Amino acid sequence: MKLENSITHENINQNLLKVNYAVRGPILDRAEQIERELAKGVSKPFERVIRANIGDCHALGQQPFTFIRQVMALVSCPTLLTSEEFPEDVKDKAREILDDCTSGSVGAYSPSLGLRCVRRRAAEYLAARDGVPAAADDVWLGAGASDLVKSVLSLFAGQVDGKPSAVMVPVPQYPLFSGTLAELGVHMAPYYLDEENHWAVCIQELERSWNAASKEHAVRALVIINPGNPTGQVLSRENIEKIIKFAHERRLLIMADEVYQENIISKPFHSFKKVTHELGAPYCDMELSSFVTASKGWAAECGARAAFVELRLPRAARAALLRVRALQQCPAVPGQAVLHCVVRAHPVRSSPTVLCARRCGPPRSGEPSHAQFAAELRSVRAVLRARAAAAHRVFSSLPGYCCNVIDGSMFAFPRVELPARAQRAARRAGLQPDELYCLRLLEDTGICVVPGSGFGQRPGTFHFRTTILHPPHEFRYMLRAIAAFHHSFLEQYRG
Amino acid sequence: MKLENSITHENINQNLLKVNYAVRGPILDRAEQIERELAKGVSKPFERVIRANIGDCHALGQQPFTFIRQVMALVSCPTLLTSEEFPEDVKDKAREILDDCTSGSVGAYSPSLGLRCVRRRAAEYLAARDGVPAAADDVWLGAGASDLVKSVLSLFAGQVDGKPSAVMVPVPQYPLFSGTLAELGVHMAPYYLDEENHWAVCIQELERSWNAASKEHAVRALVIINPGNPTGQVLSRENIEKIIKFAHERRLLIMADEVYQENIISKPFHSFKKVTHELGAPYCDMELSSFVTASKGWAAECGARAAFVELRLPRAARAALLRVRALQQCPAVPGQAVLHCVVRAHPVRSSPTVLCARRCGPPRSGEPSHAQFAAELRSVRAVLRARAAAAHRVFSSLPGYCCNVIDGSMFAFPRVELPARAQRAARRAGLQPDELYCLRLLEDTGICVVPGSGFGQRPGTFHFRTTILHPPHEFRYMLRAIAAFHHSFLEQYRG
Repeated sequence: MKLENSITHENINQNLLKVNYAVRGPILDRAEQIERELAKGVSKPFERVIRANIGDCHALGQQPFTFIRQVMALVSCPTLLTSEEFPEDVKDKAREILDDCTSGSVGAYSPSLGLRCVRRRAAEYLAARDGVPAAADDVWLGAGASDLVKSVLSLFAGQVDGKPSAVMVPVPQYPLFSGTLAELGVHMAPYYLDEENHWAVCIQELERSWNAASKEHAVRALVIINPGNPTGQVLSRENIEKIIKFAHERRLLIMADEVYQENIISKPFHSFKKVTHELGAPYCDMELSSFVTASKGWAAECGARAAFVELRLPRAARAALLRVRALQQCPAVPGQAVLHCVVRAHPVRSSPTVLCARRCGPPRSGEPSHAQFAAELRSVRAVLRARAAAAHRVFSSLPGYCCNVIDGSMFAFPRVELPARAQRAARRAGLQPDELYCLRLLEDTGICVVPGSGFGQRPGTFHFRTTILHPPHEFRYMLRAIAAFHHSFLEQYRG
Repeated sequence: MKLENSITHENINQNLLKVNYAVRGPILDRAEQIERELAKGVSKPFERVIRANIGDCHALGQQPFTFIRQVMALVSCPTLLTSEEFPEDVKDKAREILDDCTSGSVGAYSPSLGLRCVRRRAAEYLAARDGVPAAADDVWLGAGASDLVKSVLSLFAGQVDGKPSAVMVPVPQYPLFSGTLAELGVHMAPYYLDEENHWAVCIQELERSWNAASKEHAVRALVIINPGNPTGQVLSRENIEKIIKFAHERRLLIMADEVYQENIISKPFHSFKKVTHELGAPYCDMELSSFVTASKGWAAECGARAAFVELRLPRAARAALLRVRALQQCPAVPGQAVLHCVVRAHPVRSSPTVLCARRCGPPRSGEPSHAQFAAELRSVRAVLRARAAAAHRVFSSLPGYCCNVIDGSMFAFPRVELPARAQRAARRAGLQPDELYCLRLLEDTGICVVPGSGFGQRPGTFHFRTTILHPPHEFRYMLRAIAAFHHSFLEQYRG
């Protein structure tokens, strides 16, 4: 008796078949295969694969912050609170967290929204950032920003007055958005970022996108990624004002993916929350969702899966979402402890750049852990700035390359002109031209980057995204290797 | 200009409005309110609220296992690996985990399925449990079993040949299932457990349920909760065989929620995987999903949000689900470390009860941490058995109460006959009769239990679920207080 499958291509949830996530897509599969080949002794023109596909700082050698990891150790193993190996400010932090855990154990469930102490600290952080009070009750903790983005997007699944819902998403975009919308069966209404204008959000393009989508869809929300992923821009205050007015006029929920707000390189960051507040009524009362994570910023604790969203929703929507999230009990409590370390507010501000350095977290000046923390922070910031400048320099100088200045985030996203012969060769192989380019780069150099087609791009343009997180010597090697590869690629496909 | 809401009761995803999760429902809201009243000095007939609504062992005073917490501390803060305060077997475990983390940091993302070393250990655990090899590639780690149950259920959203999908779920059930199905818009096809037959699964009742649902739905999967939640039964091997044959005949994916498999009190546990294997072809080749968690069992590390599912799926379904889960990156890595501590396999087996005590986890006899671990394990097991017996004794002796023997899990689920006058009073107040009973219990005694209507029950019967996890003196108080309350409740509503 042959067994028939209970789940087939035909009867599976069809939305799932439409999900793609290029950051962990076919290029990474091939990179992992190459790693296995190298381990077996297969000869390659390089010694090892360099993963530049994902913003994973620790994987690329950034050392964890001592303070955070000491707090994690203490909350995990409170008997260490009597050890003299830990500074007092670390112990205080750990005690504050443990006092808020039921029966003092990170092994107990927290409230679904997250520990009260973490949500209070997050609200203080927001208040210091924006100059306007924030409510701990509007802070929802989650298992990474991805988890929270999915929850907020889930509000829109279904139809309104017979029209299926749609959400406006920038192109290029971080494919969490396209993937999650596909999973939820919500239409994605793309709007193009203005590459010639430093990846700004053009209001006419928003209008074009909204008009096009509104013919057959109910447009419900507007996703903004600032600082940009993969594009690395930081939006100007004027641009943000116009976006807010656009969203307000059309009753769109702004979803401000601001997870790179602490990865600022050259331009000041303005949160959507702050700008809505400064615009006054009616904008300061808008519903809003904005995302902050422990995976990015200086801490870069991706493995902790810890983030929060400030979510201002009408009461009925809030109650419904609370019930849904309660089904999953709560976010991981050790991750909540990490978030607590990241979001302590520093109210002192002066210039924009000093603001960035100061308001981000513990320990405060005068506390025992401060000197080490400050040294670790300086080092993380200095290398990011240096690498952003080096990447921009190289990607602006190669023939056919073009790259905006990297204002923030941890990525470069150069545009690459690909020869017509290369484009034809790609299509014959069933690949996008930039996929071919990135696969060839991987085979020749071991460098794993993500093709622009994984993020979306204007038709006829080609890009790739690379992280700029590697140790200096490796990063220099990468840039040299990409340059050499590009010349040989052009040579091969010369018209 | 008055701001209109962007999200209203009318335009929100309507599925979200149908989600209910009684374990964190209105009774808990009232309990939390009472706690705040007590804190303000309001006088009550009790000193504090006793939460018996959720299986959260640490919250109720169970101490974490030293070994697990020491491993957590070391993987968080690897500089402690040189400290002499930690035994060598703890250090070995931590090194094994860190060696598998990219660049040795729990702050790096893991593969979406989870760390390779944890999945390999989990496969060994399954192999030792079932006497049949398990593949690490079939082990998917997640943020608690809830996360993984949702993923597997998501396979079924949508329609098959124009019929909406349905999933068979026991009644009473753990409301994660009804809630998640509502969220996904998948129909729940209820089948009643046989309370008179020790909450067994009656095959005729499965057939009735399947036939009823199949008229308008495509029935796709069969949920079994074993040991039962809230019902506390452990299914016999014969019962499991018949269930497997039933599911096979109708091409249903079995979803075996076996998260209480280490909370065995009086009857041997048989996994669905083992029984399919022992039945031989064609059953041993069936697709199957079975869930194991670090939140339950002896470790009870709920806050870690760490679980795995053994998931045998056809290739296309596996690939689709992998892409969807990659959107969320990976489960929290500190939680994966906890799971690694929980699932080390012990191949030694003799009788069923010794099997339970032995196969569960580290450290092994002869290792430095073994004596302390063994003492902690004995204590956890002994108190669970004692409380199960005490609960059964009391709930079998009260007038109008009736309670099956508690074979496993951490709950008692007594049936309570409620006077007709009480039923009428409840309906006048817009409550289910068991809700009224539980609310009154809370107001009179401070004890917070969950009404049977939150889990589902045969019409006209009333139950409640209480955890049996409290410290001995508190548990004795609870049982006495429930008995006294019941007598006064009967008195008040005497016909």
